[in-house]
Amino acid sequence: MEKQVEKITSRDVDFAKWYTDVCKVADLVDYGNVKGSMIIRPYGYAIWEQMTSVLDKEFKKLGHENVQMPMFIPESLLNIEKEHVEGFAPEVAWVTYGGKEKLEERMCVRPTSETLFCEHFKKIIKSYRDLPLLYNQWCTIVRWEKTTRPFLRSREILWQEGHTMHATEEEARNETLQMLKVYEDFQRNYLAIPVFVGRKSEKEKFAGAKETYSIEAMMYDGVALQNGTSHYFGQDFAKAFDIKFLDKDNTLKTPYQTSWGCTTRMIGALIMTHSDDRGLVLPPNIAPYKVCLIPIGNDEKVTNTLNTLKEELDSKNITYKVLDDDKTPGFKFAEAEVKGYPIRIEIGKRDLENNNVTLVRRDTLDKIIVNKDEAIDILPILLDTIQSDMYNKALKRRNKMIYETDNYEEFKELATKPGFIKVNWCGRTECEDKVKEDTGLKTRCTIMDEKASGKCPICGHDATCKIYFGKQY
Amino acid sequence: MEKQVEKITSRDVDFAKWYTDVCKVADLVDYGNVKGSMIIRPYGYAIWEQMTSVLDKEFKKLGHENVQMPMFIPESLLNIEKEHVEGFAPEVAWVTYGGKEKLEERMCVRPTSETLFCEHFKKIIKSYRDLPLLYNQWCTIVRWEKTTRPFLRSREILWQEGHTMHATEEEARNETLQMLKVYEDFQRNYLAIPVFVGRKSEKEKFAGAKETYSIEAMMYDGVALQNGTSHYFGQDFAKAFDIKFLDKDNTLKTPYQTSWGCTTRMIGALIMTHSDDRGLVLPPNIAPYKVCLIPIGNDEKVTNTLNTLKEELDSKNITYKVLDDDKTPGFKFAEAEVKGYPIRIEIGKRDLENNNVTLVRRDTLDKIIVNKDEAIDILPILLDTIQSDMYNKALKRRNKMIYETDNYEEFKELATKPGFIKVNWCGRTECEDKVKEDTGLKTRCTIMDEKASGKCPICGHDATCKIYFGKQY
Repeated sequence: MEKQVEKITSRDVDFAKWYTDVCKVADLVDYGNVKGSMIIRPYGYAIWEQMTSVLDKEFKKLGHENVQMPMFIPESLLNIEKEHVEGFAPEVAWVTYGGKEKLEERMCVRPTSETLFCEHFKKIIKSYRDLPLLYNQWCTIVRWEKTTRPFLRSREILWQEGHTMHATEEEARNETLQMLKVYEDFQRNYLAIPVFVGRKSEKEKFAGAKETYSIEAMMYDGVALQNGTSHYFGQDFAKAFDIKFLDKDNTLKTPYQTSWGCTTRMIGALIMTHSDDRGLVLPPNIAPYKVCLIPIGNDEKVTNTLNTLKEELDSKNITYKVLDDDKTPGFKFAEAEVKGYPIRIEIGKRDLENNNVTLVRRDTLDKIIVNKDEAIDILPILLDTIQSDMYNKALKRRNKMIYETDNYEEFKELATKPGFIKVNWCGRTECEDKVKEDTGLKTRCTIMDEKASGKCPICGHDATCKIYFGKQY
Repeated sequence: MEKQVEKITSRDVDFAKWYTDVCKVADLVDYGNVKGSMIIRPYGYAIWEQMTSVLDKEFKKLGHENVQMPMFIPESLLNIEKEHVEGFAPEVAWVTYGGKEKLEERMCVRPTSETLFCEHFKKIIKSYRDLPLLYNQWCTIVRWEKTTRPFLRSREILWQEGHTMHATEEEARNETLQMLKVYEDFQRNYLAIPVFVGRKSEKEKFAGAKETYSIEAMMYDGVALQNGTSHYFGQDFAKAFDIKFLDKDNTLKTPYQTSWGCTTRMIGALIMTHSDDRGLVLPPNIAPYKVCLIPIGNDEKVTNTLNTLKEELDSKNITYKVLDDDKTPGFKFAEAEVKGYPIRIEIGKRDLENNNVTLVRRDTLDKIIVNKDEAIDILPILLDTIQSDMYNKALKRRNKMIYETDNYEEFKELATKPGFIKVNWCGRTECEDKVKEDTGLKTRCTIMDEKASGKCPICGHDATCKIYFGKQY
């Protein structure tokens, strides 16, 4: 195992390399032989299952139902909404043959499913009684990327896409913001990631949307990771697809639409927010195994204590992993650290002479020696403490990397540092383009609870909003 | 709603039409606009979620871990195992373009993933310590079908595929049979479907497998539905992919492989086994909602009783649906029947004068008038009774449609009737081909617990096994 830990490049030496090392050494992913393809291994998939099970329950609580749409979109269907097709056509995979037969019309593998949902909605929406329609789909999508970074960029992405239709604009707008809040709460409370939520600029919004809202997290290296989006479509798609409903007042109306999605990128965010040079550090609320039990030696007392602890954990429904093969204790400690189990319990003969076991927190590596009969009782509180400590640590680090300025020269200087820059902004694409050219930074999202005041530092026009700029993954 | 029920063709008039009517009217599926494509609607998907959640737990209990492999297989990779590519190449979808660029090598969308798993196994299997490798994947696969029948035949299929590697032949053979048993128990205990399990003939086995075992159910019309398969591969794929492990005795060995899968076909089997001219009939153990509550009229006492019953159901974790909109009682009863909720509870003013509510079993349509305070208490027993009654009814019907003969002339006569024919068989493909030509019947599966005795009625050679013949979906 020492060999394995050696394989992790230091985070402060080469962050990109450190990230891919952690993904590989913690057995989260493997690369397929084809460029751009990725295999999610059991431990990586278990983290995704933790995420999907929490989110799926939240979605259902709010009345959403899961469906499964086809994965292929005929070219003519993709073409129906103009902005949408322009945004996606350059990056889709095209199926042209079925067996030996050339298809009359080629089809792409869905890069997203607005068009498929709209085609279905047209058939099933007749009356106001059919609204709101609150659908969600768990599936994979394909975007023909040329580079691969585990969980961040690959040809095939596991995700969830919500698609909803509403009788009124107000209701659709509320849905857009409600689902943004679901993502925000999930990331804060489960992933222990402090996030900004706000509106994307005109330039950065989703192809075909009226408004896009996003979740923006700042990674350890100060770079932004967009981590969930929620779109308000207005009636554009509905009009393009001729979707109408008979309202209570007996007139035909066009419904209002939203969509929202999040992906395995959240696993990337999790890693790049919390993990360190020893490997993964997982927040207890999302860790597939909360505890790792490590018996040291073959002593009978050790085995008995191990068995008692396992029973107690089972009875308290606390998930755990046991490392009880014939490897050395040092190897096992390193293994537990690489995998990021929030707490490891070392069960050793010497400790047991005093009726003790040793608990080690993965986030701080602090050791706590406790009576073996009390070890399991203190776990719930300790796990909660780790969860909130991890959030606070990430929040403190992030806040140190947020700068504010009303001067463009200073802006350009700040742009050389890692982090986000907060400015008043005019909202015009020209200024975004200029910043991109001068510094490489892009807009992240507007600051929803702060009003604009003063001038845009880039062009001097009146500001219309406050916004974050930052580099992005 | 009466209108909706009218839409269901009678099962005894046109079984095929009845089936698709039930799928549509119960809101299980919709057709996509593209030939061969299918949309699984919320109620259909909820049934699939019931199935996947039970099976996923069973798989994990037995040590299997979920992974996610890429969906694209490069042509050269598909070509590695000869029999396999011959079986699948004619029915795959080929991706030839990524965005505007023609691919150097075309890729198919996975029709099954043996080749992808083997490529990954080659990388991660080094030593006996890495075995057994017990993997499973939930995903969709594509086979370029020209016809669509909901859940039975469509271009894209939701399924689960297990892929395992073992150090010894015995262990791999045990795994093949163990997973067959998991499917069998699931279908008996949850879907209330009596099934035969046995080995497929040489002709009917999976492309590339040494042995294929299958689950064979007989539908209401006497036609067979293959409903889950488990394959033993021996070392053929492992050799083709050059997968080796260092065994305890320090020599390099080739591992033994299995795969096993089941699909949304099980929803088709569920419908064609139990449902009737009024719509779905779902066994309680798999129904997304066990109970349907129907308040009749706007009376305060009715509303209070409804609320009390809801609370009691919640506290007992019994899932339910409430039909409390402004439609007529007759409409709601028909709606509850179409959807196949195992029990509906009618809450009416007149019944309540005697403190009663009316329970109606979906499977028998029997009415049971009970004191409202006892209604929920009797549900668990009533649901169990419905579950076993449904199984027994299906079993009785199936057993009536099984014939046995040792005379080929009689065989050909029996072949005109719905059902299966049980015979001693020589095991030779020539005889299968002859039966297919003479009668349209194919072999289903061998009878594992009965030994062959006597001659094959088709050719007169010595029999090597007993087997079922039948028509198939």
